Amino acid sequence: MPDVTSERTETDHEVLAAVLQIRSETLQVLLWQRAQQPDRGRWALPGGLLGHDEDVQTSMLRQLEDKVDVREVAHIEQLGVFSEPRRVPGIRLVATTFLGLVPCDADPTVPEDTRWHPVAELPPTAFDHAEIVRDARDRLRAKLSYTNLGFALAPQEFTISELRELYVSALGHPVSATNLQRVLARRGVLVPTGEVAPPGPTGGRPAALFRFAERRLRVTDASAVLRPPNVGD
Amino acid sequence: MPDVTSERTETDHEVLAAVLQIRSETLQVLLWQRAQQPDRGRWALPGGLLGHDEDVQTSMLRQLEDKVDVREVAHIEQLGVFSEPRRVPGIRLVATTFLGLVPCDADPTVPEDTRWHPVAELPPTAFDHAEIVRDARDRLRAKLSYTNLGFALAPQEFTISELRELYVSALGHPVSATNLQRVLARRGVLVPTGEVAPPGPTGGRPAALFRFAERRLRVTDASAVLRPPNVGD
Repeated sequence: MPDVTSERTETDHEVLAAVLQIRSETLQVLLWQRAQQPDRGRWALPGGLLGHDEDVQTSMLRQLEDKVDVREVAHIEQLGVFSEPRRVPGIRLVATTFLGLVPCDADPTVPEDTRWHPVAELPPTAFDHAEIVRDARDRLRAKLSYTNLGFALAPQEFTISELRELYVSALGHPVSATNLQRVLARRGVLVPTGEVAPPGPTGGRPAALFRFAERRLRVTDASAVLRPPNVGD
Repeated sequence: MPDVTSERTETDHEVLAAVLQIRSETLQVLLWQRAQQPDRGRWALPGGLLGHDEDVQTSMLRQLEDKVDVREVAHIEQLGVFSEPRRVPGIRLVATTFLGLVPCDADPTVPEDTRWHPVAELPPTAFDHAEIVRDARDRLRAKLSYTNLGFALAPQEFTISELRELYVSALGHPVSATNLQRVLARRGVLVPTGEVAPPGPTGGRPAALFRFAERRLRVTDASAVLRPPNVGD
């Protein structure tokens, strides 16, 4: 096996983020319109070249700062490496990609060249960025089902009905509010705040407000049998 | 934002795999001993530089061929990017890492410089490779709890008691055979082969043999409420 420290290749490395937010009950992604060739006029994910003295996560957060107030990104995680040799014309560019999530009640200021686009109806995209957006959507959908990741889409406090709307928008299929509450409460993901939402225009019984117990990712749906035993088990 | 196609950096890119197998009821990882500086004599993960005309997965499989018959690797997936600027002395080297799994009944031939080592008692390791091994172990443990990933550790057919031993070795804590069978059967992960195992030396009732319904990764523990509704729901 060749020793990695005694050979060199010439590969550039970039970082790219698919930042998702539910806006107008639709899962959307932040894209900017390329002003230069190649792929001028096409829409691209925020990102850029990895700097000499930073790791990929530091680089990603630094480069996102150009597009969005990163304090509004509630969660970011590595998505995967995109490395098809001809993914960007003319140079060898390997991309480390990230999934970022912005809660629905944030409305970050974005630059002139940048807009939110529905994930289901992307404009013409640059390079392999549409594939990265699809992977980000699929990762989000999978993790909503076995983790507490909903915290990163939701406001600090919400009614079950509001949370259900967010899950429906993210998952793309119907979800029962009753089941959602039962499942998330049983797993200890949601806790009631003790407050109720202000009554809507049509009156009716005021709805209880909830919050996520934790705003940090964890696997919530691991089968109890495979967890470490607790004292008393 | 700088345009990624108009700037260059000098980053090398390598791929590394933490290939895990349960051997002697212990979770073990495949490492080779470095013959050159830096870190001469220390143990390293198999891998090497990304070639000009291959993506990271192709490269990983090609480089694993030097160490192990890759037909015996039942599952491989991207683990993450390791990119701390000083992770390897003297050069800027970004690593895409993989988790690989070998079923316990395979006994791949490995080169002279290569050995299996218990994950819990690693020898002196090169660079950040111990951290990569820990991440691989943690990914395996997490996925055993919400996917069918056990298929990649188990032989084609097994008794529940044999499967339990594998889960215990991988998870590092006790698991009840009864609960394991109940949970995996309910999720449709395991199916009986209809055969029984040959009786052991002490006789006793012959144990039923099972196999994994699918030998391809899928999330099995997603809460039903968050799955797409089926006809009739």
